[in-house]
Amino acid sequence: MSKKLRELGELAIVDLIRKRFRDFRPRALRGIGDDAAVILPSPGSRLLATTDLLIEGVHFDLVFTPPRDLGFKSLTVNLSDIAAMGGVPRYAFLGLGLPAGLSRDFLRDFFSGFARAARRYETNLVGGDISRAPAVFIAVTVLGETLPSGFIGRDGARPGDGVFVSGWPGESALGWEFLSRGKKLDPAGRRWIRKHLVPEPRLRLGQELARHKLANSLMDLSDGLVLDLKRLARESRVAIEIEADWIKLPAGFAASARKIGRDPLRLALTGGEDYELVFTAPPGKWEAVEKLARKIKLPLQRIGRVKAGKPEVTVKDRQGKILPFSRGGYEHFVS
Amino acid sequence: MSKKLRELGELAIVDLIRKRFRDFRPRALRGIGDDAAVILPSPGSRLLATTDLLIEGVHFDLVFTPPRDLGFKSLTVNLSDIAAMGGVPRYAFLGLGLPAGLSRDFLRDFFSGFARAARRYETNLVGGDISRAPAVFIAVTVLGETLPSGFIGRDGARPGDGVFVSGWPGESALGWEFLSRGKKLDPAGRRWIRKHLVPEPRLRLGQELARHKLANSLMDLSDGLVLDLKRLARESRVAIEIEADWIKLPAGFAASARKIGRDPLRLALTGGEDYELVFTAPPGKWEAVEKLARKIKLPLQRIGRVKAGKPEVTVKDRQGKILPFSRGGYEHFVS
Repeated sequence: MSKKLRELGELAIVDLIRKRFRDFRPRALRGIGDDAAVILPSPGSRLLATTDLLIEGVHFDLVFTPPRDLGFKSLTVNLSDIAAMGGVPRYAFLGLGLPAGLSRDFLRDFFSGFARAARRYETNLVGGDISRAPAVFIAVTVLGETLPSGFIGRDGARPGDGVFVSGWPGESALGWEFLSRGKKLDPAGRRWIRKHLVPEPRLRLGQELARHKLANSLMDLSDGLVLDLKRLARESRVAIEIEADWIKLPAGFAASARKIGRDPLRLALTGGEDYELVFTAPPGKWEAVEKLARKIKLPLQRIGRVKAGKPEVTVKDRQGKILPFSRGGYEHFVS
Repeated sequence: MSKKLRELGELAIVDLIRKRFRDFRPRALRGIGDDAAVILPSPGSRLLATTDLLIEGVHFDLVFTPPRDLGFKSLTVNLSDIAAMGGVPRYAFLGLGLPAGLSRDFLRDFFSGFARAARRYETNLVGGDISRAPAVFIAVTVLGETLPSGFIGRDGARPGDGVFVSGWPGESALGWEFLSRGKKLDPAGRRWIRKHLVPEPRLRLGQELARHKLANSLMDLSDGLVLDLKRLARESRVAIEIEADWIKLPAGFAASARKIGRDPLRLALTGGEDYELVFTAPPGKWEAVEKLARKIKLPLQRIGRVKAGKPEVTVKDRQGKILPFSRGGYEHFVS
């Protein structure tokens, strides 16, 4: 039987973590074990910094989430924010609150997943804090750097821009529907469940957009396409129109959604945790965006347009009728 | 009656926070409202980064902790880690998990305290994440910079060094004893309670030690003098001897401790959350340390010595007898 954390002790836990990340790159001048990490920024670069929380019972349920996947996702949702600036991730900091009755195996598996993501995306864990807690509480901060070509914010969308989204929004939400119904082994749901449990940050896409200055604005999707675009609209002081009819769904998606009584379009427009990127680009760049999609083998769909007007998001059908999705998405503290 | 967070919504909460810190310095190139903060590091400086958790029921109890003090302390315990490297704090990131039934007043008071600390110590809140949670979870990350003279780590203690501590260790623990007994209004306890609730980071001390290269090693006290010194001993691969007899207690401390049945020396040696600094300095620097204490009006007591040997901490009485404090202090997950 696996030891419980309360038998292991904090110093021993920190030692385990430190050993695991010892040979990772990039190196900090001073990492785990001192009061603060010491980092030498690349000359001339600007620093990117982002924090995300994952809280048991809110963002995940241990019944449905393997600890290894949780570790992977804890880092990649933060890397997604670096991708959303067109940046390169460098260092991670982990605040981890854990119930004392959790097993040592949980910790081993969590860090195995965290380390897998760290190695794949060339990020090093160089600091953090660990504590007892009434529930599993994960706070990750990632430091990254901009490319010499600069970053892309949420505030640059201009009237006339096309609105693009990477991948297939809604897959993660559909995965959650399968997972939470205990349909983990249903072959129809497996693909969406993977997307939900181990999302990949779109770092390459973000970096290519920044390097070639293809996008006027850029952000990642965490709370649903419509709600997140509303945030982008507010920051850019523009209106955004989505053409429902333009949204393509991946093969099998609609059938899977209907199988469990969900509307596929609603999932695509309001489902959270996609960690895809949305961006706006002026018409002169659309061809380059299409080329990029082929080069990095990632679908980049144009789903709407930026207009002058109040910072709202409207979703229209083929006839130009406004569909009732305009407030969709997940917002904390709103029931 | 104050609104509940669930009636307020996440976007509105983020707007409130953003407005509050809008005019703070230093400015980020991009702060709250984008996917990641963008920061221009000072040319030639090294970056310091540290994360600390504060968890309801573990680090604080809302029954005893005013939200304003909690906000102040959430930041200052992190600033203490920057002080412990001899650095200058610059930017803060806040991950905040809150039960949806908390009042809007809680949030207002929390940020009032956080902002007070931020303004006093010239730190700006430029990013974070907010979420529902089953209990109040606070994860703060602070970015700072080293002085041109460099940082002081935990690993530089050398045999022959004297061991110094700032202020009066044990005050915070004594404050907690009064507070948790409901003796908030007992005039004997008031001073220690303030020290527990609103600890000041010893930034000036850390910076002076780094600027004038007075210390070989430096760290801050969070889990108790003996346990924290054990960490320093491990990082420096040295033994540390504390002379119990050399430890001075502030006026009234012993009487207050005895009033509630606590041993004053044990509080000083094992009480947590002091956020004082401990450092080691070679004999040639002791006079300069004494001068510094007068200059910054902060007691700097010499309480022991560094020796070659196994990385242990021993506490000796006047006769050279070893006192049973060697494992004292707060360690998470150890019951």
